[in-house]
Amino acid sequence: MLKAININLKRIASEILSKDNVYILCHQYPDGDTIGSALALALALLQKGKRAKLLCSDKIPNKYSYMINKLEVLDFEPEYIISVDVADKNLLGDNLKKYEKNIDLCIDHHQKNTGYAKKTIIDPTAAATAQIIYKLIKKMDVEITKTIANCIYTGITTDTGCFKYANATQETYSIAAEMLKYGANAFMINQIMFDTKSIEKIRLEKLIYESLKFYFNNTCATIYLTKEMIEESKAGEDDLEGISSIPKKIAGVKVGVTFREKENNEFKISVRTEGEIDACKICEAFNGGGHKNAAGCSMKGNLSEIEEKILLKIEESLKFSGR
Amino acid sequence: MLKAININLKRIASEILSKDNVYILCHQYPDGDTIGSALALALALLQKGKRAKLLCSDKIPNKYSYMINKLEVLDFEPEYIISVDVADKNLLGDNLKKYEKNIDLCIDHHQKNTGYAKKTIIDPTAAATAQIIYKLIKKMDVEITKTIANCIYTGITTDTGCFKYANATQETYSIAAEMLKYGANAFMINQIMFDTKSIEKIRLEKLIYESLKFYFNNTCATIYLTKEMIEESKAGEDDLEGISSIPKKIAGVKVGVTFREKENNEFKISVRTEGEIDACKICEAFNGGGHKNAAGCSMKGNLSEIEEKILLKIEESLKFSGR
Repeated sequence: MLKAININLKRIASEILSKDNVYILCHQYPDGDTIGSALALALALLQKGKRAKLLCSDKIPNKYSYMINKLEVLDFEPEYIISVDVADKNLLGDNLKKYEKNIDLCIDHHQKNTGYAKKTIIDPTAAATAQIIYKLIKKMDVEITKTIANCIYTGITTDTGCFKYANATQETYSIAAEMLKYGANAFMINQIMFDTKSIEKIRLEKLIYESLKFYFNNTCATIYLTKEMIEESKAGEDDLEGISSIPKKIAGVKVGVTFREKENNEFKISVRTEGEIDACKICEAFNGGGHKNAAGCSMKGNLSEIEEKILLKIEESLKFSGR
Repeated sequence: MLKAININLKRIASEILSKDNVYILCHQYPDGDTIGSALALALALLQKGKRAKLLCSDKIPNKYSYMINKLEVLDFEPEYIISVDVADKNLLGDNLKKYEKNIDLCIDHHQKNTGYAKKTIIDPTAAATAQIIYKLIKKMDVEITKTIANCIYTGITTDTGCFKYANATQETYSIAAEMLKYGANAFMINQIMFDTKSIEKIRLEKLIYESLKFYFNNTCATIYLTKEMIEESKAGEDDLEGISSIPKKIAGVKVGVTFREKENNEFKISVRTEGEIDACKICEAFNGGGHKNAAGCSMKGNLSEIEEKILLKIEESLKFSGR
């Protein structure tokens, strides 16, 4: 693990501004933070008379178009390459692999950033990389336009689950407040990001609700996510987001388990727990791991046998925690 | 409609502090804003050596207990009565009806406040009454404790749907940031308010998803909410919250309609629309009304006939808007 660098954003801002042709790389399967961060930085550089270009291994999903439609795609060779919100070079994806050894600067908020760039700025206390980008472009003496404000707000709201996750700090809210001052359309952004559900996802949720089972006096709930369910609902990878948090969200449930069917009779098991109940310990018993309240493991075999094994371990944990 | 009073919060703060025995009244079916506002004010007054008591016609739901457990229930007669977040005297509910003519001060953010109190402070630009309470208690020179911060944050987050609604302004975010500085546990509060779903609600959603139908090239979606569905799922009034926004949330849907069965073959119809499509106009055709993007009406008769009538009107609106 890389130590957080004592950040001198003013120095970094000067270094970037000494270059004229900059590529900004996003991570694969791009989310609101990597796109919002990259675009905010690109727009700032364009404002300063530089050439800047966003690159991503995957197509940028349409829902982000409100940030992108003003960005001309320029054709030029890079003099300086920056990656944003990319914790590891493998996350650049196949189409950006060719740049992995030439990244001059990485700006990120992931504690586990692997330090693949020549220079790395990490601030793990930032809820989103967009928070760091905001501070950086302020040092560049850039005017925060409505579009830049939308980009920064998008990074923040998507990485905090609309301010719902534990990572949202006082600073997160303060920067969001400033973005609204500069004209960010928080309402529109949150509607697009959090208030739109595909019909495929609704179909999948219906099937998942049918699979719901309760154990141990309703303190444990389990769901299935089988290949058949995904096929039947026509759900895409996007629609699977947040699925494994469904059982734990049910009132009274202390342990939520999702059994996701993979190839060859193999299941990926996600365990979410409350408070002192240790999800990581439960999963470690099956060669898995993770965090205290969110962990996972993989198991092969017959589903009902797998369930039995996991449930036995969960029962122990519930007893141990005095539930 | 009452005009917003040019607020002199310092003067109001002095007036309140000149009293020793204060009742603070919430609205019936209490929500996070009326409870959070009342408790924050009560705790501020207690800190200033006053006697203060929160009153509500209904039982305060358990989920708000993290704000309440430190409040002693005192027995005293009121010298001054304040209502918070109560737009009309009828919203006090049966058990507080006896106070309706003796309310000295009403603090509210509803534009349509009916002006039933001797003095009324309204700020319709405030996303929550808690925002006004925060400014008021600051004028009282009160120390913002962790519990007060939790109360104010609760009012704000519940009335903005976790910062998702259009009412959340720069000031809303700024006050939230301050509350985090004073120790508000935003993560816990949002988990309780927005990340917990009863099994009854899940059962109801499953039934609702089964009733989902699409029209006009999937730009209109409808759902049923029948008495049978409510009985089968054992859903309570709480579980019905947000149900009528389900169809409109589906990607691509411009008009969402909910048919809720009432007594005697009567249906309450909620219409939610996007952008220029006028929900109010659609509902006015059936003696209903509301806002441009959210309106309702009641209709009696056979459900399929009712559906046909509404859908005809919706088809017109969709054509008119060029969809």
